[in-house]
Amino acid sequence: MPTWKLTLEYDGTRYRGWQAQANTERTVQGVLLRAAREVVGADAVAGGAGRTDAGVHALAQVAHLKARSSLPPVEIRHGLNDALPHDVNVLSVEPAAPAFHARHDALSRTYLYRISRRRTAFDKRYVWWVRDRLDFSAMEKAARHFRGRHDFFSFCENPEGQQSTIVVVEGSEVAERGHEIHFRVEASHFLWKMVRRLAGTLVEVGRGTRTIAEVSKLLAEKSPEPARWTAPPSGLFLEKVRY
Amino acid sequence: MPTWKLTLEYDGTRYRGWQAQANTERTVQGVLLRAAREVVGADAVAGGAGRTDAGVHALAQVAHLKARSSLPPVEIRHGLNDALPHDVNVLSVEPAAPAFHARHDALSRTYLYRISRRRTAFDKRYVWWVRDRLDFSAMEKAARHFRGRHDFFSFCENPEGQQSTIVVVEGSEVAERGHEIHFRVEASHFLWKMVRRLAGTLVEVGRGTRTIAEVSKLLAEKSPEPARWTAPPSGLFLEKVRY
Repeated sequence: MPTWKLTLEYDGTRYRGWQAQANTERTVQGVLLRAAREVVGADAVAGGAGRTDAGVHALAQVAHLKARSSLPPVEIRHGLNDALPHDVNVLSVEPAAPAFHARHDALSRTYLYRISRRRTAFDKRYVWWVRDRLDFSAMEKAARHFRGRHDFFSFCENPEGQQSTIVVVEGSEVAERGHEIHFRVEASHFLWKMVRRLAGTLVEVGRGTRTIAEVSKLLAEKSPEPARWTAPPSGLFLEKVRY
Repeated sequence: MPTWKLTLEYDGTRYRGWQAQANTERTVQGVLLRAAREVVGADAVAGGAGRTDAGVHALAQVAHLKARSSLPPVEIRHGLNDALPHDVNVLSVEPAAPAFHARHDALSRTYLYRISRRRTAFDKRYVWWVRDRLDFSAMEKAARHFRGRHDFFSFCENPEGQQSTIVVVEGSEVAERGHEIHFRVEASHFLWKMVRRLAGTLVEVGRGTRTIAEVSKLLAEKSPEPARWTAPPSGLFLEKVRY
């Protein structure tokens, strides 16, 4: 069956996450599938690389699309965008191997978390505004501690439901961008709510309410604390999927 | 009476423009005045430098605020921001001379108009998406024609209601910023809908449906054409007020 690799961006504010659910129409995969059935036919199937949660955004989510259609990629892109709501946008459509699977074939995902150090009239839906003064260099040191192979049990919602809570974090760093602090983290896979709990923990360190030694301990021992610091979904973006 | 100079940003999407109106609560000046009365007292008055229209945004609108209050500027700023809706944000509050008047004292206003050359999931409220291919260098030449002293009668809504339709445009230029084209125009004052008609005319030139010679003619003779090309308010930002 013809297969395409789609790259798409979306504003997750109005959606109950990526994953199609039987009880709601309001998922990104749901609106993508509805558009795809209009454009490439009723037997279209589509799956994404990352299952973003409710309110989480994507700058470059990748999805596979399979359908019995001979439309050229550029027409599929235009057709999908005409059929999609304004907050979901297909950036590119490329032919892919028939076996291409957006989730199974992905080598790594990179997430971006945007923290704003000031109130903003334009970006409320895209940042977490933290009023307290943040110690950037302490956050920088803490972010480095997340790198490598760790048991992220303390940073996972429903860890018992996971096969394993071990994750190898390939990259973890913070950067200053004007009034914002950007936290970027790359790994082959992530546990449920993990990035938001890492971001929340970094902010605790930035506020001075937690030390770097305590962060190391959270990676070594099971703790209920990161769950309480879960950063809001508004600041989170799936930024890149590597194949 | 103590007077302050306020610099504020707002997302104009939800508002019927800057100017307070008797028949609606939904103006930026209206919500600013309501917040000011909570923070600095019931006799507060406030006026802005530019009367942005419905749906038009501001990156740095300037307003004067006068009230019998001895609160320090930083507390006024925090108080206003706590009382303001999420899409209006006071960037700074500075003490000003008692005679300071945001509109009368302004030497020039700069507006930014954002044109997007692609569909966008995030910026629909902040750009005008033009699907047609745009000739940037033709737009560059046309933008230069707006500079100087001209009769902008053809670019004004309700020109008969104006004392004069002569405007001296100090700056007018376009720039490429990724997928966007930014049009910036500076003048001591602007006529009603003038910037949106200049932007609409530039897009006509970019599309190749109007020549630069025709743009020159629009500045020399009265024409109903620019009114038909009025660019949508979503792309327009009051960017700077100079004193």
